[in-house]
Amino acid sequence: MPTLGQNQYGKAETRVVRVTRDGAVHHVRDLNVSVALSGDMAEVHHSGSNAAVLPTDTMKNTVFAFAREHGIASPEEFGTLLARHFVTSQPSISRARIRIEEYAWDRVPTPGEAEHSFVRAGRETRTARIAFDGEELEIFSGLTGLTVMNTTDSEFRGFVKDRYTTLPEAGDRVLATDVTAVWRHAADAPDWDAAHEAVRGHLLAAFAGTSSSSLQQTLFRMGSEVIERQPGIDEIRLSLPNKHHFLVDLEPFGMKNETADGAVYFAADRPYGLIEATVLRDGAPARIPVDTTTP
Amino acid sequence: MPTLGQNQYGKAETRVVRVTRDGAVHHVRDLNVSVALSGDMAEVHHSGSNAAVLPTDTMKNTVFAFAREHGIASPEEFGTLLARHFVTSQPSISRARIRIEEYAWDRVPTPGEAEHSFVRAGRETRTARIAFDGEELEIFSGLTGLTVMNTTDSEFRGFVKDRYTTLPEAGDRVLATDVTAVWRHAADAPDWDAAHEAVRGHLLAAFAGTSSSSLQQTLFRMGSEVIERQPGIDEIRLSLPNKHHFLVDLEPFGMKNETADGAVYFAADRPYGLIEATVLRDGAPARIPVDTTTP
Amino acid sequence: MPTLGQNQYGKAETRVVRVTRDGAVHHVRDLNVSVALSGDMAEVHHSGSNAAVLPTDTMKNTVFAFAREHGIASPEEFGTLLARHFVTSQPSISRARIRIEEYAWDRVPTPGEAEHSFVRAGRETRTARIAFDGEELEIFSGLTGLTVMNTTDSEFRGFVKDRYTTLPEAGDRVLATDVTAVWRHAADAPDWDAAHEAVRGHLLAAFAGTSSSSLQQTLFRMGSEVIERQPGIDEIRLSLPNKHHFLVDLEPFGMKNETADGAVYFAADRPYGLIEATVLRDGAPARIPVDTTTP
Amino acid sequence: MPTLGQNQYGKAETRVVRVTRDGAVHHVRDLNVSVALSGDMAEVHHSGSNAAVLPTDTMKNTVFAFAREHGIASPEEFGTLLARHFVTSQPSISRARIRIEEYAWDRVPTPGEAEHSFVRAGRETRTARIAFDGEELEIFSGLTGLTVMNTTDSEFRGFVKDRYTTLPEAGDRVLATDVTAVWRHAADAPDWDAAHEAVRGHLLAAFAGTSSSSLQQTLFRMGSEVIERQPGIDEIRLSLPNKHHFLVDLEPFGMKNETADGAVYFAADRPYGLIEATVLRDGAPARIPVDTTTP
Repeated sequence: MPTLGQNQYGKAETRVVRVTRDGAVHHVRDLNVSVALSGDMAEVHHSGSNAAVLPTDTMKNTVFAFAREHGIASPEEFGTLLARHFVTSQPSISRARIRIEEYAWDRVPTPGEAEHSFVRAGRETRTARIAFDGEELEIFSGLTGLTVMNTTDSEFRGFVKDRYTTLPEAGDRVLATDVTAVWRHAADAPDWDAAHEAVRGHLLAAFAGTSSSSLQQTLFRMGSEVIERQPGIDEIRLSLPNKHHFLVDLEPFGMKNETADGAVYFAADRPYGLIEATVLRDGAPARIPVDTTTP
Repeated sequence: MPTLGQNQYGKAETRVVRVTRDGAVHHVRDLNVSVALSGDMAEVHHSGSNAAVLPTDTMKNTVFAFAREHGIASPEEFGTLLARHFVTSQPSISRARIRIEEYAWDRVPTPGEAEHSFVRAGRETRTARIAFDGEELEIFSGLTGLTVMNTTDSEFRGFVKDRYTTLPEAGDRVLATDVTAVWRHAADAPDWDAAHEAVRGHLLAAFAGTSSSSLQQTLFRMGSEVIERQPGIDEIRLSLPNKHHFLVDLEPFGMKNETADGAVYFAADRPYGLIEATVLRDGAPARIPVDTTTP
Repeated sequence: MPTLGQNQYGKAETRVVRVTRDGAVHHVRDLNVSVALSGDMAEVHHSGSNAAVLPTDTMKNTVFAFAREHGIASPEEFGTLLARHFVTSQPSISRARIRIEEYAWDRVPTPGEAEHSFVRAGRETRTARIAFDGEELEIFSGLTGLTVMNTTDSEFRGFVKDRYTTLPEAGDRVLATDVTAVWRHAADAPDWDAAHEAVRGHLLAAFAGTSSSSLQQTLFRMGSEVIERQPGIDEIRLSLPNKHHFLVDLEPFGMKNETADGAVYFAADRPYGLIEATVLRDGAPARIPVDTTTP
Repeated sequence: MPTLGQNQYGKAETRVVRVTRDGAVHHVRDLNVSVALSGDMAEVHHSGSNAAVLPTDTMKNTVFAFAREHGIASPEEFGTLLARHFVTSQPSISRARIRIEEYAWDRVPTPGEAEHSFVRAGRETRTARIAFDGEELEIFSGLTGLTVMNTTDSEFRGFVKDRYTTLPEAGDRVLATDVTAVWRHAADAPDWDAAHEAVRGHLLAAFAGTSSSSLQQTLFRMGSEVIERQPGIDEIRLSLPNKHHFLVDLEPFGMKNETADGAVYFAADRPYGLIEATVLRDGAPARIPVDTTTP
């Protein structure tokens, strides 16, 4: 006989934009909010009775109403408000999980004192995941789609060769990746926006500053930089696709394609390497699920 | 001090197509294969030494070589061969995880006895995940992108109303979803292709045959149908986005928009409901991770 | 001084689904409708006065209202109704262009006499473009995303070799493409749905039945088949990306990778060949714009 | 009898990255290049003879070889080199059309004097289209994916109301769009990169600085700013989707949602308005095809 296992339901991808005005200076927060609730939901699965089911449409309404009522201080704080609300206000709900993506906007200068014009900043998305079970609150911060490249100071040598290995060793290669990172503060951050900006800076600095013998080494340096520089952060998981840039063979055309002198690369799509790891503060527990950053 | 937690690396999305010939009758298997390996990899993260690192390029080569040497009987069997190979042949590797997507092709008739023409079948993708740790083998089968719709026999009534609820009850609505399913056989399937086809049929039949009071009820019927009809399957997880089709308000134009008589719907993109649950054979353990089917 | 050139405005991508009931047997038409209008619109560009501007929101409403009032006999007929409406009812509008995509649904059997369950049929999309300027009506029918593959009977030999040519000749290769086609009937089709189905069949048959020395030859056979078999069709434009399937070099592993015996291919993403051409009935004018099928 | 009409063939989406070194300071150009050639190609369509066909694989090789040999001064200049090469070196080719997308990278600071680290700059893509027929050279510059938003100084009032109009007038709305622009210099630009940067700046400034009564008015101001400020540019075509941000109705929850005080918007996906127009220098010919910027 079939029985019901873990289940959850919710409204995914509510696109809410909040604009606040400080005189002629406007501020924008632009979020994509997904809500998933679980609890005592056996009845609706078995009989179809919705007596314990808050409609997902209501979750959407709640996102908009909360954005108006409480504002959006940060994705982490907004998600926490929502998670607490659903668990504490609905008897049938024992766990809420909120996922948020935030899109950043830079200012475009306008004439005079007004500041109400914006341009979308980059391809990178800020992320947050908030879970609340009535007692414990768990918050993961993150980002995805931060595309970076080093045009030198990367090599790949001394690797294992088996029967199927044809790759030549590389002493000077392009290293490019799309950073996905998820990190966890030991306690609430005093300032989520500042913490996010700081982590982003550490990731970029470590990527740029590491002379890399392998993408794993670069990953570990990136994670370590965050742990070392941000005392409040105990854990970070990184997922780094190796966006291969292959040095094109131009010998058939009588040309040398040398890195020292205007080299030409083919930027490949698939397949790609994928390097993933968690870096922890010594002694800290690993709480970020392994699959959180996997595509 | 930063320490290394869980880590894995591999080659993602190797696109391999194998064509076999049975006289003038050709057969095709078209896969997207991702490999992730883990084991004793501390050194490469810390010092950059690749002495224990099999290149991801070699994994790609292995996928192609194995497709040639062993053929592709099914995604599950092909993935199992690969997972066993990496763990047993590489001293530094203790766990391999293989993810496969398969794209199906239907035949296009050709004149005479030849059968070598094909057309891509539908938007649906078959999936398989295989993990091997040297002892235990874990196989999940699945599919994603199976888009279905019932134009009646669906209602949504008697739900919880709170302060933020504005949704009216619906006695006759369109129910549409993109099925993502992942299931687990208690033991190896005798015939993976036949089992896959059977599960697909059960999912469609249960979706079509359920008079639905909520999408949760439909989901549970779909999962139960699979468990009841396939004695070899112990667990299935389903993720069903509620692709909302809103009855358009035509009253401002002096029209009634009634379901009984040529109703017109707006097919919305975002936000969407998202219903997820596991259905188990009574007594069977839940092994499919909750996030496996979450977008 | 800047002056205004060609301009148009409209509502893009209104997603309308119409369900009609023939007793317990339901029928579905699922469209994505884009409207673009042009006419005497200088004022709104210069001064911002909307006195001649029908809101794009109204165009959306009109799509829904017309689907209810007139039904959707076919994309071509529905688009014609809309195009005529905007031009004849709005004094400021002299030209309407309607673009429609239609998504097909196959039936899923339901118990008893009911037929109200559907599954999305394939990745292929039917297209239609309708333009009306108050006098002349122009209708283009089409399809996009029809993915096909021949696993033999394709070669590529005897081509030009210049200084940059390294490609070896191929005597037996895989030929795969995503068909995009746009065609034009000399007059209104008596039955647009039947005509569409017939063209699709001719395209598939010609692709499957052509022993190909180049993709251009296959393209011309596909177009010719349509012109020869459909007396009402005077012109067809085809865009065929060459989805390269490269025979993998397995010699480094001591294997031969021969087409006669289970060959293994790498399905590449980018770059890809792109072959485009118009085929006309002898003497017919070329009216389908060249860029209509270009990505 | 079927006859051959306009036809072209080529290699699409060759992804070439060129890295030049100025001591420890590196420079990157990252392009996606598509080549389409046409000429005397009847034979290959009719008989399959490739005697006049330069392989598309050779076009890909040529892109890489030219990047090495000539460098990439700008997309416009690189495309011009390629277009001239194919037409002048291949007797069967009478017209070449090159399409280029360029992805921008910003610098990430590295320690010391080295400058070889980069981060992808924004979602915006620079575009260029170059056509050469042996005599005349035609160059269009452009950009796509520049996402901008004004949170006030936009209204939409005084529009036409017909039977299907329900939209209320808006005195203070959010105006957001993804700018696609294609422009034409009267002659070769002295500095293509500088011209591109200048146009981008004019577009942003005009969008930000226009108090908008309709998106058409904003579009015309954006185009006019370019024509007025860049004497070398004679024509620009703009395509501006109206990315609707709907003020959410919060009255059912007893809240006012006022723009003056922290308003909350729903960012909608589909349908969307789409405003397109060409702006010309007085007396200049319109040469940019109308469909160039249409999705």
